[in-house]
Amino acid sequence: MINQKYKDRLSNKSVIRELAGYARKRGKDIGYENVFDYSLGNPSVDTPTDYNSAVIDMYKTMDSMSLHGYSPSLGNTHAREVIAASLKKRFGIDYETKHIFPTTGAAGAIAHAVRAVTKPGDTVLGFAPFFPEYRPYINDSGAKLEVVPPDLPDFQINFKELEKMMNGNVTAVLINSPNNPSGAVYSQATLERLAAFLNTCQKKYGHDIFIISDEPYREIVFDGKKCPYPSHYYDNTLSCYSFSKSLSLPGERIGYIAVNPRATDADILVDIFAQISRGIGHNCPSSTAQLGVTAVIDETSDLSVYETNMNLLYDALTEIGFEVKRPQGTFYIFPKALEDDAVAFCKKALKYDLIMVPADSFGAPGYVRLAYCIDTEKVRRSIPALKKFAHEVYGK
Amino acid sequence: MINQKYKDRLSNKSVIRELAGYARKRGKDIGYENVFDYSLGNPSVDTPTDYNSAVIDMYKTMDSMSLHGYSPSLGNTHAREVIAASLKKRFGIDYETKHIFPTTGAAGAIAHAVRAVTKPGDTVLGFAPFFPEYRPYINDSGAKLEVVPPDLPDFQINFKELEKMMNGNVTAVLINSPNNPSGAVYSQATLERLAAFLNTCQKKYGHDIFIISDEPYREIVFDGKKCPYPSHYYDNTLSCYSFSKSLSLPGERIGYIAVNPRATDADILVDIFAQISRGIGHNCPSSTAQLGVTAVIDETSDLSVYETNMNLLYDALTEIGFEVKRPQGTFYIFPKALEDDAVAFCKKALKYDLIMVPADSFGAPGYVRLAYCIDTEKVRRSIPALKKFAHEVYGK
Repeated sequence: MINQKYKDRLSNKSVIRELAGYARKRGKDIGYENVFDYSLGNPSVDTPTDYNSAVIDMYKTMDSMSLHGYSPSLGNTHAREVIAASLKKRFGIDYETKHIFPTTGAAGAIAHAVRAVTKPGDTVLGFAPFFPEYRPYINDSGAKLEVVPPDLPDFQINFKELEKMMNGNVTAVLINSPNNPSGAVYSQATLERLAAFLNTCQKKYGHDIFIISDEPYREIVFDGKKCPYPSHYYDNTLSCYSFSKSLSLPGERIGYIAVNPRATDADILVDIFAQISRGIGHNCPSSTAQLGVTAVIDETSDLSVYETNMNLLYDALTEIGFEVKRPQGTFYIFPKALEDDAVAFCKKALKYDLIMVPADSFGAPGYVRLAYCIDTEKVRRSIPALKKFAHEVYGK
Repeated sequence: MINQKYKDRLSNKSVIRELAGYARKRGKDIGYENVFDYSLGNPSVDTPTDYNSAVIDMYKTMDSMSLHGYSPSLGNTHAREVIAASLKKRFGIDYETKHIFPTTGAAGAIAHAVRAVTKPGDTVLGFAPFFPEYRPYINDSGAKLEVVPPDLPDFQINFKELEKMMNGNVTAVLINSPNNPSGAVYSQATLERLAAFLNTCQKKYGHDIFIISDEPYREIVFDGKKCPYPSHYYDNTLSCYSFSKSLSLPGERIGYIAVNPRATDADILVDIFAQISRGIGHNCPSSTAQLGVTAVIDETSDLSVYETNMNLLYDALTEIGFEVKRPQGTFYIFPKALEDDAVAFCKKALKYDLIMVPADSFGAPGYVRLAYCIDTEKVRRSIPALKKFAHEVYGK
C-alpha cells in the first residue's frame, strides 16, 4: 500500500520549485534572458577547471577498481585524510581522519547527523529564517523540528525566545551561518553566547546537546571577512559541509560531516554515521566526487560575482525604499516585502517578470528571498523592472 | 545524546567485512596474491572503456551547469528517458520516463521502495538465503523484515513456508534473482506461482502487496540464458537495479527504480520517491554518474570471467565432495560446509589462506559463500588449497 504520509505531501509542493517552474515556462515564451529569475540557489559560476582536469586525469590513469570500486563504508580513506588535514590547517582544530565522514552534500550530512545525536521523539531547535527543507530532514528522522522566531532586523539569534523554548527534550540545535535566506553571518558574540547557553543547558538537563551546523555557504563571505567557525566555540559540534556552492557542483552530491574532536564520543561518531547509512541507503558519495574534491581541496570557484551582485541589489533595494539588511555572505538577499502579504507581493511581481520567493515557509512571513546566483548583467537589467514594479504597484 | 540503537550496532560488525579485513592484513604478510579471498562482492573486471571515454568527453565539452548543476528532484530527465527506452525495448514493458527514478545504487533503490509501499509496523517478507544488509534496509524504515526459510537444495521459493508466514500485515515481499548468495535464478514457474499467490493474497486481504525486486545481478546469467524478469509476471513490481555489477562501478553509486506501469499508483510513485528523498538526504545520485550510464546504457563490462570462474569452482567443489548447487548467475557459489558449524569451517579454512563467508547471517546456517569475482588465475591456484583443506581437515 502506498505510504499515505508521502502521498499527502504531493499536494503540498515547494513554493520555490513552483516559482522556478513558472520562470522556466515564462522563459520559453519571452526568452529566459528576459525572466529575472531569483528563485533558485543553483550556483551560477563555473566549477574550477582544476576539478574537471583532475577528474579527466583520474579517468585516464587510474585502474578501474581504485577509481570505481566500492568505497569503505566510512568513506574513501584518502579523501578523509585530505579533508581532515585541510580543516586542521585552516581552523586550527585537531581533526583526524577518524573525524571525517564523506556525505552526499549537506543534505546527506544533516540526515546522518540528526539520526546520530537524537532519537525519535526528541526536539531539534532551529532558528528562523531557515531553509524549508530542514523540516523533512529533521522530521523524517523521527525527531521534531521546532523553530525559534527570528531576531529582527539583524537575523542573529533571538536568545529571549530560545531560552523560552529550551527544555529537557532538546538534544540538538540546527544552525546555518552564513544563512539561507537572510545572508546573515553569526558573529563571534552570537556563537559565544549560544555556546555558553548550551553548556549551561547540558549541565542543567544532564545530557548532551549537539550543534548541527549547516555550512554550505562558509566560503561565500563578503568584505574580505571570514565566517566565525561554530566548532571553535562549542565542543559538541557537527559541521555539515557541502562542496555544492564553493566548487559549483551541487549535482555531484559531495560534502562531509566533520566531528569536533572534543565532542562526546568523537572517536565513534563516524562509525555511527556508517551504521545509519545502512538504513537510509546512502553508502557513500560517488567515488569520483570523493577523489575529485581532494584534488582541489583548498580551491573555490570564482565566488566574487556574488558580492558584486549583492552590492548592486542592496543599493537598488535600499534606494527604492525596501527595508533590507545588507547580507554578509551567501548569494541571497532578504528584504521585507512592500506589503504584509509576501505571497501576494511575489505574485504581483511576476507581471514584471521578477521571480522572488515569499519567505513564509522560511519562518519569516512578510519577507522575500532573492537568490542572486545569476549573471551580473541580468541583475543590472532587473533593477529597472524592480523600480517599475515598486513604483507602479506600491507608489515607491 | 548519541542514539543508542546505532551505538549498539557497533559491537555487532559484519562478518564479511571482518573477514575481508583479515584477508587484507594477511595479504600484507604473505602477499595479497597468495590470499584466496572469496569474501567480497567487489566486481573484478574493468568498467567498459566507453564509460570512461564518455565521462572524459562530458568533462571536456559540457558547460558547468549542465554537467555539475542540481538534478531535478526526480532525477536527470535525459537519464530517465534513456533508461525507460532501454527497458521498454528489452523487456517489452511500456515504461515511460515517469516510471524511472535514479538512485544511489540498489541500496538507495530499496531504501526508497520500501518506504513508498509500506508504513512503519508493516511486515516485509524476504527469502533465505538473502543479502544480510536487507535487515537494516528494511528495519530502519520502520517496517519489519521476516525471512521465509530456504527452499533446499534448489534455492527457489519455499512456498509451503511462504503460505504459512503470509498474513494481512504483509505489504511487500523482497526478492533477489539472480540471488546473492546462492547464485540461483528464479525460474518462470517460480515467478508465476509467486504472482498467482500474491494476487490471491491481495484480494483476500484487500490491499496491495508489492514485490520489491532487487536485481543488481540481472546481467550476470550463465549458459547463454536470460533471467526471467519479475515485472513480467506481477503488476505491483518495483525493479531495483544497480549498474554496480554490470558496469563494474559500485563506487559511483548509480542505479534506479523502474515502476511497473501497471502497478497501483504507477503514475505517482516516482513523485513519492522524491518526497522520501527529502527525508533521507538522498537528493539524486551524482550527475556525472547519471549522465555516464546513459552513454553505455546497453553495454556491460566483459562479464564472461564470472562464468569461467564458476565452472572451475563448481567442478572442483563437486570433485572434492561438497554438496553444491550449480549457480545459474551472479558471481557467488554456495556450497554446504563440510561440518554443521559453517563459522568453525570458515575459521579452519583461514589456515589455508581460503577466505569464505559463513552464511548464518544470510539465513542459511551450514552453508558458505564464495564470491569468485577475482582473477581466474587465482581461482585456479586456490583449488589445490581447497583440496588440501578438505582432505587434511575433513578426510575428503
